[in-house]
Amino acid sequence: MTYQSDICIIGAGPTGLFAAFEAGMHGIKSIIVDSLPFAGGQCSALYPEKPIYDIPAYPSILGKDLSLNLKEQADRFSPQYLFDTKIISYTQNQDKSFTLQSDKNQSINVKAIIIAAGSGFFGPNRPPISNIQNFEGKTVHYLVSDKSMFKDKTIVIAGGGDSAIDWTAELAGLAKKIYLVHRRDKFRAAQHTVDKVFNLAKQANVVELVIPYQLHGINGNHGVLSSVSVSSIDGTEVKNLEADFLLPFFGLSTDFGPLKNWGLEFDGFHIKTEQSTMQTNIDGIFAIGDAATYKNKLKLILTGFAEAATAVYQIRDIVFPGKVFNFEYSTSSLA
Amino acid sequence: MTYQSDICIIGAGPTGLFAAFEAGMHGIKSIIVDSLPFAGGQCSALYPEKPIYDIPAYPSILGKDLSLNLKEQADRFSPQYLFDTKIISYTQNQDKSFTLQSDKNQSINVKAIIIAAGSGFFGPNRPPISNIQNFEGKTVHYLVSDKSMFKDKTIVIAGGGDSAIDWTAELAGLAKKIYLVHRRDKFRAAQHTVDKVFNLAKQANVVELVIPYQLHGINGNHGVLSSVSVSSIDGTEVKNLEADFLLPFFGLSTDFGPLKNWGLEFDGFHIKTEQSTMQTNIDGIFAIGDAATYKNKLKLILTGFAEAATAVYQIRDIVFPGKVFNFEYSTSSLA
Repeated sequence: MTYQSDICIIGAGPTGLFAAFEAGMHGIKSIIVDSLPFAGGQCSALYPEKPIYDIPAYPSILGKDLSLNLKEQADRFSPQYLFDTKIISYTQNQDKSFTLQSDKNQSINVKAIIIAAGSGFFGPNRPPISNIQNFEGKTVHYLVSDKSMFKDKTIVIAGGGDSAIDWTAELAGLAKKIYLVHRRDKFRAAQHTVDKVFNLAKQANVVELVIPYQLHGINGNHGVLSSVSVSSIDGTEVKNLEADFLLPFFGLSTDFGPLKNWGLEFDGFHIKTEQSTMQTNIDGIFAIGDAATYKNKLKLILTGFAEAATAVYQIRDIVFPGKVFNFEYSTSSLA
Repeated sequence: MTYQSDICIIGAGPTGLFAAFEAGMHGIKSIIVDSLPFAGGQCSALYPEKPIYDIPAYPSILGKDLSLNLKEQADRFSPQYLFDTKIISYTQNQDKSFTLQSDKNQSINVKAIIIAAGSGFFGPNRPPISNIQNFEGKTVHYLVSDKSMFKDKTIVIAGGGDSAIDWTAELAGLAKKIYLVHRRDKFRAAQHTVDKVFNLAKQANVVELVIPYQLHGINGNHGVLSSVSVSSIDGTEVKNLEADFLLPFFGLSTDFGPLKNWGLEFDGFHIKTEQSTMQTNIDGIFAIGDAATYKNKLKLILTGFAEAATAVYQIRDIVFPGKVFNFEYSTSSLA
């Protein structure tokens, strides 16, 4: 399958969506690619229900609503979306246009590229247990999408952060038994909720703290868990916890994947850009939002919006070479 | 009267209001000064009822609502407002703090200044008629706030842009008679409405085009108009139009006023800044939004928001010298 557009925006998070809107305002067609199955990036995937307080003119807005509003704003110009898709590589053609290749054997021909990939592809940190893939999505979950599956079940929750503590507190009223496994006896989580979990462990027989212990292995067949084995930190003691589910909450890993091999200049984990254009070291490839850096860069969503506008204004000269543009103000008319 | 705060923000438009919010997020107290009697700048004063389409995550928002939402967001941190007030001058003290003087004999002591003054003080362009001040606000109006006063009255509307044409069309159904005076026989306005006005002039006896003519003088006593005199462009012919009201629509003038004498470097009508800090050539004085410029500057409201954040992050080091700040992301918690 071959796609054709003016620009390819890599990443359908807030900054990428707004870049598609700005592009549309200038008559530039865009195709947006994201590895997630939906728009909104981390706002939709990681904190849809959390209020954000520093989006201009929103005293408070939930992550999911921010995503929805930005998508509605972009959709006025009907960008194409390719979800569940990763961009693997690109070639630059003789006329300076680009052909991108996706992991689904798609080719995308465009005149410029905007990388709005945030921290890159993101996914859960997996515990180093060799056979865990066999259980994932069945009895091992890194995200809770439907609490009801845990009713009257025995669960091992592993981790020491907010997710482990919050879900232990949340599921204590539903599950038959929860083992909370952590390598340390202190938790990096809101003290109020930590206190609640410690009280639950004292009072009732639902929550049992297994600390300091670490995950050692998982046992079962055909994706059905029978028990989770944990070991003491020095590895000398191993014990088995009979359980129906394992929920490991070890945070997220992020990775730019193949983008790292594109010849882009990085500063640590961020792509170097020229702030006045948001162009990278490769002509025609721009980076915006959390993926991009320059002197005094602020990793704020609102900063990404302004960077999107800057990149698109530059890209007008690539998409419409030789055209003279009037200077423009914030607009009360649509392209 | 002497005021004390961490920073003074000159201008309570969208960019200035958002700067006050960002300041509050970082525990920085602010005092906001505006020459208008209310917050919102041009959004509130000039286009409160016009939809704006390029505010991120608002597919459409009215100028007045943008202002209200930004003020609500800023007001979480209770900035002080000084409305109807112009900043005249500043002195820098030995400890590098600033003392500002207002046109109302107020002194304001702060550690840093953010100029978010847009295009400066703005007001209507007055026709060069010496005695016009005597009639302003009574029978001469530069803005229409209450249409009903024109019922069954005779009005002279002067000007060739959208305001002159729009109000001629709008008031034709209400007024007894409208003279539309313009120096040329072509109008710089939406063709649809120009056609409508020309048709009205042909069909009915309410609208009469007085073109090409220019305003020459106004006659009356104690603010009560008796007639408006107009002359041919070469000045040889003068005629009197009996009228109750004169509405001159000659656009807006803007002026930085005393700010021009502060020693700030200007590029045309804009204050030069370093984009990565938004600081002007004077240490401790920052400029953001339409007042500021740098290479490839975009005069978009959303760009002003990002500049506000940049300036405030720099000002943290001035207000809290020596303090180490954690790197921050878009936030779901308040200071």
